[in-house]
Amino acid sequence: MQVDGKPYQSIWLHPHHIDCVQIIDQRQLPFNFVVEDLRSLEDACVAIKNMYVRGAPLIGVTAAWGLYLGVLQSERDNSADIESIRDMMAQLIDTRPTAINLRWAMETAESRLAQTNPPYAPLLKGLAEEMTRDDAELCRQIGLHGVSLIESIATKKAGETVNILTHCNAGWLATVDWGTATSPIYQAQARGIDVHVWVDETRPRNQGASLTAWEMSEQQLPHTVIVDNAGGHLMQQGQVDMVLVGSDRTTRSGDVANKIGTYLKALAASDNNIPFYVALPSSTIDWSMTEGVGLIPIEERPAIEVSQVPGRLPSGEVSSVQITPSASAVANPAFDVTPARLVDGLITERGICEASEAGILRLFPEQQKQASMS
Amino acid sequence: MQVDGKPYQSIWLHPHHIDCVQIIDQRQLPFNFVVEDLRSLEDACVAIKNMYVRGAPLIGVTAAWGLYLGVLQSERDNSADIESIRDMMAQLIDTRPTAINLRWAMETAESRLAQTNPPYAPLLKGLAEEMTRDDAELCRQIGLHGVSLIESIATKKAGETVNILTHCNAGWLATVDWGTATSPIYQAQARGIDVHVWVDETRPRNQGASLTAWEMSEQQLPHTVIVDNAGGHLMQQGQVDMVLVGSDRTTRSGDVANKIGTYLKALAASDNNIPFYVALPSSTIDWSMTEGVGLIPIEERPAIEVSQVPGRLPSGEVSSVQITPSASAVANPAFDVTPARLVDGLITERGICEASEAGILRLFPEQQKQASMS
Repeated sequence: MQVDGKPYQSIWLHPHHIDCVQIIDQRQLPFNFVVEDLRSLEDACVAIKNMYVRGAPLIGVTAAWGLYLGVLQSERDNSADIESIRDMMAQLIDTRPTAINLRWAMETAESRLAQTNPPYAPLLKGLAEEMTRDDAELCRQIGLHGVSLIESIATKKAGETVNILTHCNAGWLATVDWGTATSPIYQAQARGIDVHVWVDETRPRNQGASLTAWEMSEQQLPHTVIVDNAGGHLMQQGQVDMVLVGSDRTTRSGDVANKIGTYLKALAASDNNIPFYVALPSSTIDWSMTEGVGLIPIEERPAIEVSQVPGRLPSGEVSSVQITPSASAVANPAFDVTPARLVDGLITERGICEASEAGILRLFPEQQKQASMS
Repeated sequence: MQVDGKPYQSIWLHPHHIDCVQIIDQRQLPFNFVVEDLRSLEDACVAIKNMYVRGAPLIGVTAAWGLYLGVLQSERDNSADIESIRDMMAQLIDTRPTAINLRWAMETAESRLAQTNPPYAPLLKGLAEEMTRDDAELCRQIGLHGVSLIESIATKKAGETVNILTHCNAGWLATVDWGTATSPIYQAQARGIDVHVWVDETRPRNQGASLTAWEMSEQQLPHTVIVDNAGGHLMQQGQVDMVLVGSDRTTRSGDVANKIGTYLKALAASDNNIPFYVALPSSTIDWSMTEGVGLIPIEERPAIEVSQVPGRLPSGEVSSVQITPSASAVANPAFDVTPARLVDGLITERGICEASEAGILRLFPEQQKQASMS
C-alpha cells in the first residue's frame, strides 16, 4: 500500500543483504516512519514481543523470517541441528501467547524441515518468501470477497456514503499487504464506492488512532477517529452501516478472539441490527478449538501500556505521559472473545461463510476429518 | 471525603469572603490538587464550560453559586433587575447542553425569585447553600439505599471480594460529597465489606483514570484501572458482580444518558446476567421526556479532547501528547443513552426502583400529575 505516495509492504528481505530482513517500526507511527533491520533470531523475537510488528498474520511471517535468520547464523557457525532449531521455534512461539499464526508458521516450518537435509537456511528462506507472498495474496482475496458486502450496502443506500466501523488495526500493517478488515474497504475505494470509516482508537495501544488512521491518511481514504466508547452511540444514531474487524484466533465454531473491546462492538451491532463481519485468513482458524470464551488464552500485557500514553509533544518530540495516579493498580487484558452468535459472517480467502462449524467447513472441507476425530 | 487525610467537599463558600466560592480544579487531578477561586458569573461559566468542575449534580450547584456571584456583583453596582438575572441564567444554562441539573437549578432559582423582592443576592446565597447541603445529603441517602445491593452480593459470595465496575466519575468530585455511583461503594467500605472496583479509564477525558482512581486512592479503597475496552471481557470471565454508574439525565421512562460508553457496558452486563444499576439524585430525572434514545441532545465536544491526551511527563511536568495523525478527522460525542430495558434498577435518594415510568412514579408519586398532563 501507499506511504508518502510510494508502494510498501510491511516486511521484506533487504535487496542487497540476504542476512537482513526489514520491517517498519510500528511503535513510532503515526509520527515517524522508521525502517528497522532484523539480523538475528533475537532481533525478530524483540520485534514481535515489543510490538515493532504486530497483527496475527504479520507476526507469523516475521517468525518465519526470524527462524530463517537464526538458522542462517547457526549454519554459518556450524551449530545448527534439529534440537537447536526446535529451541528457536519455541523462543519465537513464546513471544506472544494469543496469536495462532506463530504456532502455525512454526509447525509448517517443522514439517518442511522433516522432509529435507541440512543446510536448512535456503529452505527456510524459501518458506518465508512463500509465506510473505501467500499472505499478501490471501489478503487480496479477502478483499475481493468482502467488497461484495460493501457494494450491496452502497446499492441499498443509492450512492450515499457507506459508513464502516473498525476496531484496532487489521490493516496492511497487521499483515504483509492489503490488511484483513481493511482489504474489502481498500477494494471498495478502488471501485469508486463512497466509503467512510469510523476508526476506534483502540486503547490501550491506540492501534486505531495511530496505525489505521495513518494507513487511511496515506491511502487518502475518508475516515474519522473516535474513542472506543463512541461506537455504540453512533450505531444507535444510524451512523454505522457495517462493522468489520480482524481476528487473532477464530475457533472452528466461529468464536473470534480479537483485540480487547471487539466483543462490546459486536454486542452493540447486534442490538442495532448492524451487520458484524470478521475478515481473516484461514491460518488464524484454530481447528482444534470448538469453543472460545474462557478457553482461548488471553494475554495479560504490562500495566504501563494503560498507565502511560505515548504521543507527540507540542515540541514535536515523541514521549509518554502518565494518566493514572501512581497508587492505582492497573489491569491490561489484551484480547476478548466474541461468541459466534454475534458474528454475521467470516470473510476468508475462499469466500464468506456463516460463523459456525458447518459454515466454516463448507469452505474448508479438508478440515472435516479433524472434526470427526476430535 | 478524604484528600490527603483531610475531609473535603467539591465546592464551598470561602470562609472569610462572601464574594468568593472555592472549587477544586479537577482538570489538574490526579497530579496536582489545586483550589480555584470563583469571584464572578463569568468565572463560574468558565469553570463549568471548561470542566474545572463536571458531573451533573456539581454543575447544578456551581451554577447556583455562579448566579449568586453574578447577582451579588450586579446589586453592588446597582444594576440587577429580573431581565439581567434571566440573562445570567441563560448564560449558565448554555455552558453545557446535556446536564439537566443546570436547567433544574436555574428554574428553582427563578421560582424563588418570583416570590421575593430585591436585593436578591441574600436569597440566592441561601439557595446555593441549601442546594450544596441537599446534594450532599441526597448522595448520602443514595449510598444508604444502594449499599443493600452490595451487601446482598457479599452475603451470596460468603465473604469473597465483591467486584464492582464503574464508568466515568460519578464520585464525590461529580457531586458535592459522597458521589452517586460511588456512594453505595463508600458505604460498603465503611461497613467493612470486602469491595474492589474496576475503574473504566473513560476516554476521551479519562475521568475514571484521573478522578475516580484518585478519589479511591485517597479513600484507600481497593481498585484497578482498566481501559474502556476491557469491561466486557472481565464480565465474560466472571470478574464483575455488578455495574454501577451515574447519570447525566434520566427520562421518566428510565432511559439513562450518561458518559459515552455506558451503553456498551450495559449491553455486556445484560449479555452476562450481571446487574446493571444507575445511581442518581432525582434532580437528574427529566420529567418531560418519555424516551431517551435519539431525543436527549448529545453534546459534541472538541476534537482536541480525543486527539490530545493530557498526563504527566517523566520530568513531572503536566503536558498533552497528540495521538492521532494530523490529517485524520476526529469526532467526539460526549454521552450516550442506555435504554431502560438494559437497566436493572435506579438507586435514588428515596430508594431503589425499576427503570420504568411505573417504577419511578412509585417513588415519586408527586410527578404522576405531569404524566397525565403530557
